[in-house]
Amino acid sequence: MSDDTEVLAPEEPREDDGYALDRKAVARILYAVDIEDREQLIALMDPLHPADIADLLEQVNAFDRMRLIRLYDREFDGEILSELDETIREEVIGVLRPQVLADAVRDLESDDVVDLVEDLDAPQQEAILDALEDSDRVAVEQSLTYPEYSAGRLMQREVVMAPEHWNVGEAIDFLRNSDNLPEQFYHVILVDPRLRPVGNVTLGKLMGSRREVLLKSITEETFHVIPAAQDEGEVAYAFNQYHLISAPVVDENERLVGMITIDDAMVVLDEEHEEDILRLAGVDEESRISDRVIDTTKRRFPWLAVNLVTAVLASMVIAQFEAAITQIVALAVLMPIVASMGGNAGTQSLTVAVRALATKDLTGSNLWRVIRREVLVGAVNGAIFAVIMGIVGLIWFGSAQLGGVIAAAMVINLVVAGLAGIVIPVLLEKAGVDPALASGAFVTTVTDVVGFFAFLGLAVTVLL
Amino acid sequence: MSDDTEVLAPEEPREDDGYALDRKAVARILYAVDIEDREQLIALMDPLHPADIADLLEQVNAFDRMRLIRLYDREFDGEILSELDETIREEVIGVLRPQVLADAVRDLESDDVVDLVEDLDAPQQEAILDALEDSDRVAVEQSLTYPEYSAGRLMQREVVMAPEHWNVGEAIDFLRNSDNLPEQFYHVILVDPRLRPVGNVTLGKLMGSRREVLLKSITEETFHVIPAAQDEGEVAYAFNQYHLISAPVVDENERLVGMITIDDAMVVLDEEHEEDILRLAGVDEESRISDRVIDTTKRRFPWLAVNLVTAVLASMVIAQFEAAITQIVALAVLMPIVASMGGNAGTQSLTVAVRALATKDLTGSNLWRVIRREVLVGAVNGAIFAVIMGIVGLIWFGSAQLGGVIAAAMVINLVVAGLAGIVIPVLLEKAGVDPALASGAFVTTVTDVVGFFAFLGLAVTVLL
Repeated sequence: MSDDTEVLAPEEPREDDGYALDRKAVARILYAVDIEDREQLIALMDPLHPADIADLLEQVNAFDRMRLIRLYDREFDGEILSELDETIREEVIGVLRPQVLADAVRDLESDDVVDLVEDLDAPQQEAILDALEDSDRVAVEQSLTYPEYSAGRLMQREVVMAPEHWNVGEAIDFLRNSDNLPEQFYHVILVDPRLRPVGNVTLGKLMGSRREVLLKSITEETFHVIPAAQDEGEVAYAFNQYHLISAPVVDENERLVGMITIDDAMVVLDEEHEEDILRLAGVDEESRISDRVIDTTKRRFPWLAVNLVTAVLASMVIAQFEAAITQIVALAVLMPIVASMGGNAGTQSLTVAVRALATKDLTGSNLWRVIRREVLVGAVNGAIFAVIMGIVGLIWFGSAQLGGVIAAAMVINLVVAGLAGIVIPVLLEKAGVDPALASGAFVTTVTDVVGFFAFLGLAVTVLL
Repeated sequence: MSDDTEVLAPEEPREDDGYALDRKAVARILYAVDIEDREQLIALMDPLHPADIADLLEQVNAFDRMRLIRLYDREFDGEILSELDETIREEVIGVLRPQVLADAVRDLESDDVVDLVEDLDAPQQEAILDALEDSDRVAVEQSLTYPEYSAGRLMQREVVMAPEHWNVGEAIDFLRNSDNLPEQFYHVILVDPRLRPVGNVTLGKLMGSRREVLLKSITEETFHVIPAAQDEGEVAYAFNQYHLISAPVVDENERLVGMITIDDAMVVLDEEHEEDILRLAGVDEESRISDRVIDTTKRRFPWLAVNLVTAVLASMVIAQFEAAITQIVALAVLMPIVASMGGNAGTQSLTVAVRALATKDLTGSNLWRVIRREVLVGAVNGAIFAVIMGIVGLIWFGSAQLGGVIAAAMVINLVVAGLAGIVIPVLLEKAGVDPALASGAFVTTVTDVVGFFAFLGLAVTVLL
């Protein structure tokens, strides 16, 4: 691979400024691997965050990846595994020596282990669980009983709680005398006698308050409790909407069972966005730049197959007008313009609608107003482009009637595009289908079929 | 609006489960506004978080919004303004009584005021700055000297720091005796004598350590310092990549000037994603479901205009083959299929590429491998769809040669689509243009032109 890195222009990519993993660092590391200089490799890897090392492993090819891991050996940190994309992760776990894997995994927090093992196949999962101490293994297996993508999988079990009647002094003394506080915690969760969370006190507030102040008098204004069964997407939404830093998780009896912190919610938010953006483009949401050719091909195929059916459907509409096209070949020249404009206008509407559904900004309260507006926008833009295309049609083919036909078809298709772009995602959402996944296929089918039919149909009526 | 809310099916929208702002709550609030029952309105709004109230104001129409704000009056909280979309925000500020606006703004933290005023026009900005106390006003005006979308605008100025040589006991005593600790802080930042940050100690770690332990021995492993001039997108990337909770911000002399917390970084991450997703669909990144018709029309027009030029260009290619189409009208029927498949395959590639560039997963180290892979994927999927379309062409039009032509054109266009989908975003990024913004137009132009030209050109060569 080292020759590849030399082919690009010599300047650094702009976007790498200030980040540890620039192109030169990668080249140096691969060179150390080439000459099998373990000390040099460790020295180069040492300043890198596990997340950067994971990125590095994703960027190099499978052969370099294997050699690097073998040479790095016992230095391999468990967090690197947590940060790796799923497909690469399985490969890396296969390459690691069993002893190195066991050591790496033992250092992780239980919620990170859950995240790690939930996607693995059974033998790999077993290998990792076997490496854990008994208590950790139990914690991980308990978390795995919650449904996938639920708050229960996302939460950490270690929480810091205090009875609701305590004062600041009691809480501080308790914390000062605790042996094993969690690695990450920012709040003391107040609980009632039945272990139900009733409020959050930030550590900063605790530090800044006098000993005799009651904890319940200094709780945070915004307090949000998360059911363990809640979908992780809803959890991320709540953190983002209410600016939460951490939130208690409760079981079906509203008893405290764990806690979620904002950094985990941020990862989920990032993944949900990634999913939306990829699904809108008709790509499987697990697609990564590091996928192998066979995986990429498989991930792209289904949407292309759907599109083929759509395109053939549109062609069948055109086939109905073969006679007209033979008489006026200009129709064949101009018809893709109408369909293409409709497809683009529809994509615009549907993207805004899909985003608004995801952020709960499109609801029963404003749906009808939004629909009316989309139709109006389609009509206005349709009218503008109708005038432009009418003139283009007139000048290009010298026929005012042809200009009028394409103008009328343009207005019709842009209005339909606006309407379809909003109604189809809303209907899919109501039917329980992710609108990001399926809207595109439906909307372009509508705009293609309507576009060709309106243009060619009007042409037959007016021109023949 | 209240009649609109009755038109939908009676069940609650799925996505509103567990959130305060469901359709019924909106209807009740609007009813209280209708009958001008201020006490009822306040009682209904009381359980809502300012973020939910902002969503409510965005969802109702302008007339209801004005009446609601007038009736709510002095209860109006400054945080609602922070949470509002920009266009609605300006309108709301215009509707608020000056006294209510002044009270609302005075309650906000200085970084929230900065976020609020930076997008306002001069008279509104002045009105808000005048409402602030002198010290707050100075803080806000200083923040505004940093470039827009920079870390300096995003940071809060209140930080908690300690000399690097202190021990835990000294830090705790200092915090216990401080009069005004910031509302939000999770770390004590260690600084050297020249005020340069050298490490972070979490409050949890501070609480759990013995008094004589040195602060520098319990700093967090991951420590990331942010330059005040850094772009906020890079800041969000760093928080997400390194799982930071808060990070110190430094000036050009590396002296501590402020701090950014993860909740603000999460908002930026969300905005950046929103921008990417909208730009990829050819919609202005400020587009919101609450925009007025005129704004929406303007925000959608430019991309449609670009697409019209693209579509006309593709039509000109078709026009070169008018004679062939007149002889074999099946060409007009089949040609949109080739172009459409290329457009979709190109969109798939470019979306994966744009995401990979944004997350720094596509770099000089793996670019050539990714390009090779995209071409290969295009060839494999192209071959599969070539066989399918070859058979369709043969059966539909009874010509093996026509089937062969469409099959060959399909392979060519899908390979070109894969290549264009990766090369165009990378070149745009190198040229300093956001690839999310412009890639789509270029890629579909390429796939349309190549699709029509390959299909019709081959047809002329083979069939005539």
